[in-house]
Amino acid sequence: MRMVELIQKKRDGQALGDEEISWMISSYVNGEVPDYQMSAMLMAIVLKGMDEKETTTMTLKMADSGQRLDLSAIPGIKVDKHSTGGVGDKATLMLIPLIASLGVPVAKMSGRGLGHTGGTIDKLECFPGFDTGIDNARFIRQVRELGGAIMGQTEDLCPADKKLYALRDVTGTVESIPLIASSIMSKKIAAGADAIVLEVMCGSGAFMKNEKDARALADSMVKIGKLSGKRTHAVITNMNEPLGEAVGNALEVIEAIETLKGRGNSELKEVVFELGSHMLILNGRAVDREEAFSLMQDVIDDGSALNKLREIVNAQGGDTKAIDDYSLFPAAKVVRSVKAEEKKYLAGMNCEEVGRIVCRLGGGREVKDAKVDLSVGMKLFKKQGDLLSPGEVIAEIHAGDEMSALEAERAYLSCLELSDTPAERLKLILGNISS
Amino acid sequence: MRMVELIQKKRDGQALGDEEISWMISSYVNGEVPDYQMSAMLMAIVLKGMDEKETTTMTLKMADSGQRLDLSAIPGIKVDKHSTGGVGDKATLMLIPLIASLGVPVAKMSGRGLGHTGGTIDKLECFPGFDTGIDNARFIRQVRELGGAIMGQTEDLCPADKKLYALRDVTGTVESIPLIASSIMSKKIAAGADAIVLEVMCGSGAFMKNEKDARALADSMVKIGKLSGKRTHAVITNMNEPLGEAVGNALEVIEAIETLKGRGNSELKEVVFELGSHMLILNGRAVDREEAFSLMQDVIDDGSALNKLREIVNAQGGDTKAIDDYSLFPAAKVVRSVKAEEKKYLAGMNCEEVGRIVCRLGGGREVKDAKVDLSVGMKLFKKQGDLLSPGEVIAEIHAGDEMSALEAERAYLSCLELSDTPAERLKLILGNISS
Repeated sequence: MRMVELIQKKRDGQALGDEEISWMISSYVNGEVPDYQMSAMLMAIVLKGMDEKETTTMTLKMADSGQRLDLSAIPGIKVDKHSTGGVGDKATLMLIPLIASLGVPVAKMSGRGLGHTGGTIDKLECFPGFDTGIDNARFIRQVRELGGAIMGQTEDLCPADKKLYALRDVTGTVESIPLIASSIMSKKIAAGADAIVLEVMCGSGAFMKNEKDARALADSMVKIGKLSGKRTHAVITNMNEPLGEAVGNALEVIEAIETLKGRGNSELKEVVFELGSHMLILNGRAVDREEAFSLMQDVIDDGSALNKLREIVNAQGGDTKAIDDYSLFPAAKVVRSVKAEEKKYLAGMNCEEVGRIVCRLGGGREVKDAKVDLSVGMKLFKKQGDLLSPGEVIAEIHAGDEMSALEAERAYLSCLELSDTPAERLKLILGNISS
Repeated sequence: MRMVELIQKKRDGQALGDEEISWMISSYVNGEVPDYQMSAMLMAIVLKGMDEKETTTMTLKMADSGQRLDLSAIPGIKVDKHSTGGVGDKATLMLIPLIASLGVPVAKMSGRGLGHTGGTIDKLECFPGFDTGIDNARFIRQVRELGGAIMGQTEDLCPADKKLYALRDVTGTVESIPLIASSIMSKKIAAGADAIVLEVMCGSGAFMKNEKDARALADSMVKIGKLSGKRTHAVITNMNEPLGEAVGNALEVIEAIETLKGRGNSELKEVVFELGSHMLILNGRAVDREEAFSLMQDVIDDGSALNKLREIVNAQGGDTKAIDDYSLFPAAKVVRSVKAEEKKYLAGMNCEEVGRIVCRLGGGREVKDAKVDLSVGMKLFKKQGDLLSPGEVIAEIHAGDEMSALEAERAYLSCLELSDTPAERLKLILGNISS
């Protein structure tokens, strides 16, 4: 097979066959197909697309490019959860203990933050001593014993995706539904769970800016899941505002803990319960959303979800005292209050810009492997639909110094959309797609 | 500037600015932009296009990526000629002596054959001893003294084009009018002539398969020429049949010499005179086609065109005796006559396949730097519109052995389109485009 002919075929809008895709992925991973041919192919895929069959074949081939994680030693139906990434997204932090405390095994591999979006691994490292680099054996043992564990992606999981993702990042070929779908689903399939709940975020703070693209991505991933024999459900959520109040690693961890204590932000809880309910339903632990919601409320009310978090943090070497004493989390030197200037309705905000502000404060990374300041971030007390009064504190900037706090304040105020007339609140759950 | 942002811009269908293109080309040539980013950009250009201004900027930047040839030491208006490549195209071999013998300086850089199309440098090397590797100083001196010289492209001419062309060849990004136009015109501009006549071939034996694309390419190149201050004229010619009778290096040289002797193929002469007339007009040597045709006929009739060929061959170390004694040219071991089977009209042929047959006989190269057998090829005695009689010799195969001659015969017969009803002759000149 000749790669140049496959590129021409895709360039001319034709579908690639199973054998062609298989050959392409394995030849790329073993270095026979060079980056410069693969990047031309990726651009052709971005501009000409791939059909459902091509995307599934590519996904499965990528999933098998390394070692699939074998979770068969863990009894029961293992449920995984993935979010396409947004601003202030701490749902995973809450879902693992919540679902695990209900007896559903959760073996979760997570990533680090990149660009304006955060990552669960960074957040967990706010717990002093927390080890996200545990090996497969320990990971599986912990899920067996405690019902939940979380670790960073191992090196030998989906090497095809690692290589392709790095290339896409520098060649303008990130924005493509089949490429995003195959990247996410190959990792999920390789991570070994039996069922997958996907959160596809949609809006100015997400990779998918509009609902049409978000739906297409969700649809594509659910189809791939089905074709590869995994129970799969996708929830489309609104990312035109950060999720909850806190943006920034330590601040988000505290908000997640508060919510597990029954005191947190109601919007955050709404999204977490929506996602959690589908995890419980796919597992069979709940028959419907109503039962699932009531089960989750129970484990919050009786403290067992919070206790499960304590067990997991403890098992992975983290300091559980931080759960009760937030001063043990990294704290920013400067906390600056942002006040409203006029009496106006908050009619919207540039959610991506909020992510970028926190990134510029040092709380995110523009390039892989950059160091992140876990202490910095923002707390947003007002959301779309709220009425702001002059002098009222609408947000808090947590920064390393006064200068960057001031810059963040300016940037935040200018990314707000204010109106004299009342504005509607955001609808958080935009849709559900089942296989 | 960041290459990934330029790629995204082009991917999204936006035009690149002058500074962006300049930075991109120089950064690619000096290695700061890697092949894998450039190939993604090339695919985006193939699928999203470039406008006239972008194409011209890219062309000029490519032309200046190395050393432009300085022809100012040669008095008069220097005229260059380029063909996009076809089957049996020996026009340059005739045009150099024809135009030079009329006092118009022709400093011609040529390429070697690739794929199903031939190249002038290979053909000239049929003359025993002919040196196409002369240096710039000798090249310029010879044009001053004799009015004509021909050499292969020097290493330091248009390094951007060399690097881009090699990359396009392996990444499925050859077929793009702005990329083809900038590749050709950058070399022509760097080669230093004042005026350029372009032959854009169109049909099954050419890179441009249809007239719409050929016209678009011609139009693009003429505009680039104009914007870069070169008098430019393009002729669109028909490449649904090989040009003239002979295909294959030595056979084509002999046909060119025969035509300069006034005995050659009339179709070949028609195309050569059309191209030559525009060279003479751009130079100012002739006021119109009529005068130009008459001048060219004169130098054929009085032998001065043939004599000019003799002088050039002699100056470049070639054996001029071959001009009178064709047995000094490389000759194939086997000559096989191909006979018609039925009484039919020849209604067409797959011209690219004829080129490929000769290539398979050893007369062309599939990859750069492969060795070529100059002796092999075909002579086609019948063209579209001719009536074939059973048993009549319609072609001749010149091959290295009987087996490959037989294969070539079979392939040739199956690429002919035969008809019971009369077919029209091909119209050779399809159009002219002036700046």
